[in-house]
Amino acid sequence: MAEEKLPTRAQDFSEWYNQLVLKAQLADYAPVRGCMIVRPYGWALWENIQGQLDRRFKATGHQNVAFPLLIPKSFIEKEKHHVEGFSPELAVVTIGGGEELAEPLILRPTSETIIGHMWSKWIQSYRDLPVLMNQWNSVVRWELRTKLFLRTLEFYWQEGHTAHATRQEAEDETLQMLGVYTDFAINEAAIPVIPGKKSDAEKFAGADITYSIEAMMGDGKALQAGTSHFLGQNFAQAFEVKYLDQTGVQQHCWTTSWGLSTRFIGAIIMVHGDDQGLVLPPRIAPYQVVIVPIFKNDEEKTGVLGVAKEIKAQLAKANIRVTLDERDGQSPGWKFNDWEMRGVPLRIELGPKDVAKQSAVLARRDRPGKEGKVFASLADLPATVEKLLAEIQDALLAKALTFRRSNTHNAQTYDELKKAVEGGFAYSGWCGNGSCEEKIKEETRATMRCIPLDQEAVLGPGGGSASGKCVYCGQPARNRAIFARAY
Amino acid sequence: MAEEKLPTRAQDFSEWYNQLVLKAQLADYAPVRGCMIVRPYGWALWENIQGQLDRRFKATGHQNVAFPLLIPKSFIEKEKHHVEGFSPELAVVTIGGGEELAEPLILRPTSETIIGHMWSKWIQSYRDLPVLMNQWNSVVRWELRTKLFLRTLEFYWQEGHTAHATRQEAEDETLQMLGVYTDFAINEAAIPVIPGKKSDAEKFAGADITYSIEAMMGDGKALQAGTSHFLGQNFAQAFEVKYLDQTGVQQHCWTTSWGLSTRFIGAIIMVHGDDQGLVLPPRIAPYQVVIVPIFKNDEEKTGVLGVAKEIKAQLAKANIRVTLDERDGQSPGWKFNDWEMRGVPLRIELGPKDVAKQSAVLARRDRPGKEGKVFASLADLPATVEKLLAEIQDALLAKALTFRRSNTHNAQTYDELKKAVEGGFAYSGWCGNGSCEEKIKEETRATMRCIPLDQEAVLGPGGGSASGKCVYCGQPARNRAIFARAY
Repeated sequence: MAEEKLPTRAQDFSEWYNQLVLKAQLADYAPVRGCMIVRPYGWALWENIQGQLDRRFKATGHQNVAFPLLIPKSFIEKEKHHVEGFSPELAVVTIGGGEELAEPLILRPTSETIIGHMWSKWIQSYRDLPVLMNQWNSVVRWELRTKLFLRTLEFYWQEGHTAHATRQEAEDETLQMLGVYTDFAINEAAIPVIPGKKSDAEKFAGADITYSIEAMMGDGKALQAGTSHFLGQNFAQAFEVKYLDQTGVQQHCWTTSWGLSTRFIGAIIMVHGDDQGLVLPPRIAPYQVVIVPIFKNDEEKTGVLGVAKEIKAQLAKANIRVTLDERDGQSPGWKFNDWEMRGVPLRIELGPKDVAKQSAVLARRDRPGKEGKVFASLADLPATVEKLLAEIQDALLAKALTFRRSNTHNAQTYDELKKAVEGGFAYSGWCGNGSCEEKIKEETRATMRCIPLDQEAVLGPGGGSASGKCVYCGQPARNRAIFARAY
Repeated sequence: MAEEKLPTRAQDFSEWYNQLVLKAQLADYAPVRGCMIVRPYGWALWENIQGQLDRRFKATGHQNVAFPLLIPKSFIEKEKHHVEGFSPELAVVTIGGGEELAEPLILRPTSETIIGHMWSKWIQSYRDLPVLMNQWNSVVRWELRTKLFLRTLEFYWQEGHTAHATRQEAEDETLQMLGVYTDFAINEAAIPVIPGKKSDAEKFAGADITYSIEAMMGDGKALQAGTSHFLGQNFAQAFEVKYLDQTGVQQHCWTTSWGLSTRFIGAIIMVHGDDQGLVLPPRIAPYQVVIVPIFKNDEEKTGVLGVAKEIKAQLAKANIRVTLDERDGQSPGWKFNDWEMRGVPLRIELGPKDVAKQSAVLARRDRPGKEGKVFASLADLPATVEKLLAEIQDALLAKALTFRRSNTHNAQTYDELKKAVEGGFAYSGWCGNGSCEEKIKEETRATMRCIPLDQEAVLGPGGGSASGKCVYCGQPARNRAIFARAY
């Protein structure tokens, strides 16, 4: 797959992305328009993402469940904002077992409605609360413009759903899960996301408040990488999710939902990737290390492969995810390119001379050429590899943060905003008025991404002081917000 | 949930099952007919099943993938037996994004067709083979008569799909995965399944050969608990899955598929459950141990809960899945019943006297009453618990095997078969003729479950010798087969 080169990111970022997803064998186009197949390498990456998130969900007391794919069409109509948001995107089953159905069924675009329906049966008393659930599944939204991982008719995600006795508890949960996403993104995926609050125009259909984590891609555009919604009592009222409180009074629950999807893989590709291909963060890479044996004849092959297998076993024993490329008929150079395309963080090159010296060459994916190569003794290889993987992880985060900060502009005027959103984020005062937001969107194609929770962290030390005025209308600013073109 | 008693298994096995699934909070009925919600306790059990299977799939070289839910309707029509088998069960999406679709899409009932379609693009050369894939997903089949876990419109499963260069390799793979299922069922779920070959009448729509593992439920009926199919070149021909062999000749691949579903949870319930509720095998139980604290006043409560938490931490540290029942307002007796209903293998009862003596009462779920209780010192509790859990696991398997063998009859005559299938398996000679199989089914409601691979293991030592004649027609028997009524 690595024979043909990618276009460079500077030439055509979008086409670089499309080709990379295919060439790295992360995913492919399905025979149904807008659907994707996640191939083994892409799914292994998703499994590592799942593992890291699921661990965090369980540590915060959530339990996994499975609600069905099929939802009565009438359910979606019970919450007025929800129906407005999702009606245009529904896929509808009208025939089952050869017969027309009395009530059409929709494929879940998200599960608030069916979960609300069941909670109304399961939740009776304050003793039953809180209910903390999550499910790993796929959902279907009939999108018109699709792109692998970023927007597909069917996509994979987790959707968390919780019910609480009080507003405060539900608000705390919403922010806790935003924190879980932020921690995951930064510490596992090396993506320096900005957690913040969405505007009313951009919030989830049915939420009182939506929070998101926003990331900057390699072309300066924004990507919403996860969302956490405070749903107030909207769904609890629509589905009569009530409980008897300690004083014997019936109360509506307060609910939340939060999700992170395979879209996040798109973020990983576009944040860390370079012109040679993927660059995967070690902590979630399917393979952290690839061993490429180098030999010219059968005798050399025997010696090199024997040692390569020993190294593989040693690294695997140290819980390092390692593969040995034993493919016949391909040169080491071809293999180097192939694994660079696939973004394996560390390559071990092993030839007869290395074996003789009991050493190997370690080549870092994040630093091309000689600069990223070191000789390492085979004696303490697992420790050396672990140290290097940790360094690579840190370096990816630092690089992404530097990139984001240097492309985030403290835009005090509308002209500055217009210029900033050509290739990055504008961080600007905003009066909080939806009409200014709408105008900015119409005129610049930039949307209000979020109001960052930590206003100082966005620009970093020395990033300049806040403007007190709305970047559009000049009225006093209620907040500072990030404006950017987005995926 | 444990206030009302279950009907006994002798009274009404079917109703015992239905109520137990609800009371143990494994699953619930969804608002759409025939669909189910798998609740946290049920899903935790499924996650443990997934973990044990996935480990085995990966150890045998398989990689996980995700193919889409939506399949063009035309795909299903390309393999003639497949379309006959699945057409009556399809759910069809006819509307997407508010518009009627040009080609209706079906919800996958299984994925051979779409996988075949993609393999025809991905597989070019013998170097690309074998392809060893698996996916964890849900599928939809429009069943008319449904029962939680056993038969639902949507169910969860894994479907393995592999492509090979030769018939032999594909046959080996089919049997290897049957072996994986057998090993899992026996060693993780303590279910003594019988691996064997299905008749042509019972095989998968599109397979050349179907193998299954068959288990005996607590009422003597059979349940097919997993299947492995040798698909020959049927799907490879229908979807043109071809490769260039070493000599430069185009060949069709040989393919397999194999699946195990949430139906297996039904088997666990019906094999091990008793009149008090679930009995879960320790190796896959969501909780292996529950600690129930016993106290009469606040002072006792403080002392007991303090020690209970220490015990919990010690057991968790030893990788034992443990929960502490701290619920207020419920008596210890109520909690005992509740956890018995939910099948936790081992209960630790801890009161003030136990704390004073630095000991606790351990009560085995599989041995009701005093017989299953032992006093244990707190000093080496994790080791004691581990030993007991292993004993319980072994005891469940031994009990299920004894039950199966004592209800499997070496039926040499048709009268003996008729009697045997009233409450168990008939093991009988069969001429191999579909018409005898059909007659037996019509007249006794018993189907040919499988031709066991190991003919001697079915009845065990001293089980009697094989009959040389077909139990129905009296002609020479080609095989000995198991006949039973089935779920």
